[in-house]
Amino acid sequence: MRLTQDILRETKAAAPVLAAASDEIKNAALRSIAESLLREKEAILAANRQDVEAAREALGPVMIDRLTLTDARVEAMARGVLDVVELPDPVGRVLRHTERPNGLMIERVSVPLGVIAMIYESRPNVTSDAAALALKSGNAMVLRGGKESYLSNAAIVHAIHSGLNAVGLPKALVGLIEDRTRASARELMEAEGLIDLLIPRGSAGLIRSCVENAKVPCIQTGTGICHIYADATADIGQALDIIENAKCSRPSVCNAAEVLLVHQKIAPMLLPRLHKRLREEREAKGLPPVELRLDARAAEIIPGTPAGEMDFDTEFLDYILAVGVVDGVEQAIAHIARHSTGHSEAILTRDDAAAAAFTQRVDSAAVYVNASTRFTDGGEFGLGCEMGISTQKLHARGPMGLEELTTYKYVVRGAGQVR
Amino acid sequence: MRLTQDILRETKAAAPVLAAASDEIKNAALRSIAESLLREKEAILAANRQDVEAAREALGPVMIDRLTLTDARVEAMARGVLDVVELPDPVGRVLRHTERPNGLMIERVSVPLGVIAMIYESRPNVTSDAAALALKSGNAMVLRGGKESYLSNAAIVHAIHSGLNAVGLPKALVGLIEDRTRASARELMEAEGLIDLLIPRGSAGLIRSCVENAKVPCIQTGTGICHIYADATADIGQALDIIENAKCSRPSVCNAAEVLLVHQKIAPMLLPRLHKRLREEREAKGLPPVELRLDARAAEIIPGTPAGEMDFDTEFLDYILAVGVVDGVEQAIAHIARHSTGHSEAILTRDDAAAAAFTQRVDSAAVYVNASTRFTDGGEFGLGCEMGISTQKLHARGPMGLEELTTYKYVVRGAGQVR
Repeated sequence: MRLTQDILRETKAAAPVLAAASDEIKNAALRSIAESLLREKEAILAANRQDVEAAREALGPVMIDRLTLTDARVEAMARGVLDVVELPDPVGRVLRHTERPNGLMIERVSVPLGVIAMIYESRPNVTSDAAALALKSGNAMVLRGGKESYLSNAAIVHAIHSGLNAVGLPKALVGLIEDRTRASARELMEAEGLIDLLIPRGSAGLIRSCVENAKVPCIQTGTGICHIYADATADIGQALDIIENAKCSRPSVCNAAEVLLVHQKIAPMLLPRLHKRLREEREAKGLPPVELRLDARAAEIIPGTPAGEMDFDTEFLDYILAVGVVDGVEQAIAHIARHSTGHSEAILTRDDAAAAAFTQRVDSAAVYVNASTRFTDGGEFGLGCEMGISTQKLHARGPMGLEELTTYKYVVRGAGQVR
Repeated sequence: MRLTQDILRETKAAAPVLAAASDEIKNAALRSIAESLLREKEAILAANRQDVEAAREALGPVMIDRLTLTDARVEAMARGVLDVVELPDPVGRVLRHTERPNGLMIERVSVPLGVIAMIYESRPNVTSDAAALALKSGNAMVLRGGKESYLSNAAIVHAIHSGLNAVGLPKALVGLIEDRTRASARELMEAEGLIDLLIPRGSAGLIRSCVENAKVPCIQTGTGICHIYADATADIGQALDIIENAKCSRPSVCNAAEVLLVHQKIAPMLLPRLHKRLREEREAKGLPPVELRLDARAAEIIPGTPAGEMDFDTEFLDYILAVGVVDGVEQAIAHIARHSTGHSEAILTRDDAAAAAFTQRVDSAAVYVNASTRFTDGGEFGLGCEMGISTQKLHARGPMGLEELTTYKYVVRGAGQVR
């Protein structure tokens, strides 16, 4: 096993080569990596079968499905890498140009961050997705995936290395951490001077640990206690569609809704229809019904589980929805300020003033009027890709595309100016 | 003494009022604060005399001068606040607008960060400067100054509170931490959910402590081991002017040069003239001469102190310059990569290729061609002001003006879209 420090040092040393590379070279590397992934598909699938076999006892069927690669999934990984080729180069853009009265020419120019590290737990395809985004934005990448997917990740990184080598770039540009214990995650968090940005993607516990322990710059991602507020003037039919979509289209993801707040005026009309829509009608279609956890005011209107103390502060990631009745938009905004993780919230309304108050004062990465929270996604926002969804305010907020993987520097040209 | 937690909670609760305030209201508050500072000038000066008296034994004359307020300095503080009125409102700008094929209208809009906290050690005027920048950018501010300037800071914050009250804004928008022990600094670093950005301004030890201990988002500022590289083709007369300016115009500040690297070809011409310029000529003018700490190759050409192990890794903040001879621009870039703090570096050259290599590959906040590093400053860069100089890559790099005190959110308007 190679030492984590050695891998970090090698990646750091290799990074400047890529930072100076043209878009043509970066695109050639991505095309070459896509080819390698297809060429080495059998090796990747064989490694993945070993991972799946070893994990079969420890993981449930949903996790096994997330872990499992197929021909189609490896081909999708290669296509994903090729998609990144088409995105504009985020590096070298002149973001601002000033000529000062003393003649200094000051340019603010976008540059890569340097080395991006990611700690992740989920699907092996994240390995190639993340590496492709890092390379396109001129960054070297250090990957530390979950131990259950280690062999798959190693096979994918092997293909990435083949691809880099084929175009004459050092394979150290993409490093895979070999130590599968918790110690290596901690080492990444403390690797000052070797990592310019650490992105944790995975459980709330992992993200918490990074916030508490990281000495390197870190971006919090993903935890989403997303709210939908149905205002007095909401279109009830549209509201039902949006609520069902936001809750049920993919309950395991961070932009799924967890909490519904309903204006007291509309609650007597909306809640009974919602109950029918999310329970009877879904059951009739053979879909999983949604468990409704109700505050006292909602429980006066429809049957459901009484909400417990933590139900308005829980990312269920499941077919569960906490439901509360509020006096109006002010109370909804105040509730969200207390309970939200700052990911995505929506107001359903036909009242422009209520929409304006909500979008102005709800302090989350994405604030919606009359649309599902499920759209908070790099692809859906037109960024073309996504390295994660930031729920912090520093540097990047919401879906992180290529631009969010860059920083800038000032280049100042003079003719002998002194101060 | 009020508890730090109570002050933080009050400031956090007050912040949304300001975030929603128009530029007119923010400007009215700033004008009102400027008036209060002048009206309460005598009280501020009296408090400052007590601070100065108490500190006279502990602090040297330079620090006493930094601590001391005068009529003129308080008037300059008020003028500084009024200058901020003239700057454009950084909040509410639509940074990007997209209409998606499904009809969603997505706007990326600049918004305040929320609550900015600053831990600082130096001059009391930082108190009003920082508060003015925070308020103009829609942020509430928590101030934790040095204990030696506590009474001065409290009197200045009193004037700020009078100014806020006079325009009907809550005084909790600017909180002063009353606990003068180290415990309060630590509390700020750990105040998750109550502080959106922590800016440490002061000693390297303070900044280190924030990086190691902060659980709230933090921006490293100020440490500057700035390099000047005199290339083979440098104009020697211009080089001497720039080097003397960068080292001597204000050696105590972070953008002063600490290290000079000289191309071997030009070293035999440049170094003897530099020695004369920085020593004999300055002494003849009654100016402090610069101590030259020389590497072995420089020591073969001119007399000076042999450089010790740490001299190329020290922010002297004094009339001391470490001098080394290098083979060329590649070696200079490599030296800077190993020893720089990422603040400001300059190349002096008439060779476009060398300038291009240097600006492209030196990874610092500001990279200069033929100008003094002393220009790295919000005012000199045309930002109109400065909250500090970031030496990290995340969020903001180099001088932090008003824009750098904002984040953004996505406002998404739909007509019932689901995914």
